Amino acid sequence: MLSKNKIKYINSLKISKYRKLNADFFVEGTKLIAELLQSNFQISGIYATNEWLQENNEILKNTDCMEVDSKELMQISNLTTPPGVLAVVKIPDVSFEPLSLVGRLSLMLDGINDPGNLGTIIRTADWFGVSQIFCSPDTVDAYHPKVVQSTMGSIFRVKVIETDLMDVCQEARKNQVDVFGAVMNGQNIYESKLKGSSSVLIIGSESHGIRNHLLPFINFPITFPAYSASNTQNKTESLNASVATALILSEFRRKAD
Amino acid sequence: MLSKNKIKYINSLKISKYRKLNADFFVEGTKLIAELLQSNFQISGIYATNEWLQENNEILKNTDCMEVDSKELMQISNLTTPPGVLAVVKIPDVSFEPLSLVGRLSLMLDGINDPGNLGTIIRTADWFGVSQIFCSPDTVDAYHPKVVQSTMGSIFRVKVIETDLMDVCQEARKNQVDVFGAVMNGQNIYESKLKGSSSVLIIGSESHGIRNHLLPFINFPITFPAYSASNTQNKTESLNASVATALILSEFRRKAD
Repeated sequence: MLSKNKIKYINSLKISKYRKLNADFFVEGTKLIAELLQSNFQISGIYATNEWLQENNEILKNTDCMEVDSKELMQISNLTTPPGVLAVVKIPDVSFEPLSLVGRLSLMLDGINDPGNLGTIIRTADWFGVSQIFCSPDTVDAYHPKVVQSTMGSIFRVKVIETDLMDVCQEARKNQVDVFGAVMNGQNIYESKLKGSSSVLIIGSESHGIRNHLLPFINFPITFPAYSASNTQNKTESLNASVATALILSEFRRKAD
Repeated sequence: MLSKNKIKYINSLKISKYRKLNADFFVEGTKLIAELLQSNFQISGIYATNEWLQENNEILKNTDCMEVDSKELMQISNLTTPPGVLAVVKIPDVSFEPLSLVGRLSLMLDGINDPGNLGTIIRTADWFGVSQIFCSPDTVDAYHPKVVQSTMGSIFRVKVIETDLMDVCQEARKNQVDVFGAVMNGQNIYESKLKGSSSVLIIGSESHGIRNHLLPFINFPITFPAYSASNTQNKTESLNASVATALILSEFRRKAD
């Protein structure tokens, strides 16, 4: 049985401040738990219903798990239909290492505040083999329950580092790492020379774009052009931030082949 | 002042059943209202605070608008921070016209149930000049408030038709329209011959893919390949449905050039 204190503790992890204070977050659902168990993330506790345990015992192998009833799970879950299993996980202690910029493509997110968008970007980065993402301090916390759920497990594979993006930009310049930025009037990405290693790609928010203090570091301003046939009328289409990131990463990977 | 009945009515439009019954939906926020006013959609009513009206009068031009206070707006809004304006809009009466398949690229969505994903797909379709989308009856309702918000106004430009997808497939076959389907083991999309006109692209749900009854209609099964370098380990990455749709549409438009 879950103690009152434990219920209170897990609920506190829905709030960014307490996640940071305790360096714990939580994940829910069979797929995410399976991915967690294949990762190096340190598990603080797993809570599952008897029903879930009977169906999914092979996933757990010998990992300790506390059996709870569905009422208890409802008290700690962040989902309207709790999927029968929840794990509390240590937030890994990662920091920015300048030399990690060399020899790979990294992503930098400036002020992305929608949890679903951030989760989808982490998932897409994983798909395209981008192994580290730098987030500005005002980007939504990567361990927010909604972010974690929408990564579909990629949170356990992609290194997400919250840091001052100016530092990253300065180190990129010092180490001859190219800085690409998705902007409004950059070079058409289809016609740009893209480089999938020793490069950083900066993505800004949909409403504000990349902020001014980062702009001077961009050596390669790029733009994803709208499909021309649709531009005959005075339309105001735009792309969702996670979709724009996916389309740009796809071009990086295509050109790198 | 908003009558009790009006408040009740607008709130009922948060539920699919009542939207269909009354053929009304609602939109919120300055950007969406501006896009609405540039469209041919029929407006049943606009409700705005005095503050909003003072700042945005030029958007409204001569459209009738009822002034409400922020408390009243809170009672009808679907957002935690109501943006000062809400409009009730007629759901357009659209139906499937077989000949509309000819000469253009259409999209078919089979069982997409996440509102954010559907909204983002509509927005992305608009960007890539796809002007009609067919949705299976179990796809989330396109006039769901969350779908509408995440289209960012594209709902007023892209024709979304809820219909039996089998009918569309049968008519496509009859009219020599090519049917592409995003599947697990199709042809690598980078190596496929894609055709951006007289074509239909079917996208299934992330969990179930395209359902069996539609598979026989697909002449061109296509797959978006994962970036190879990331496939060295036994990873289980996947793409979000709206991201996958964007990447595939981008390839269609690139090849059509």
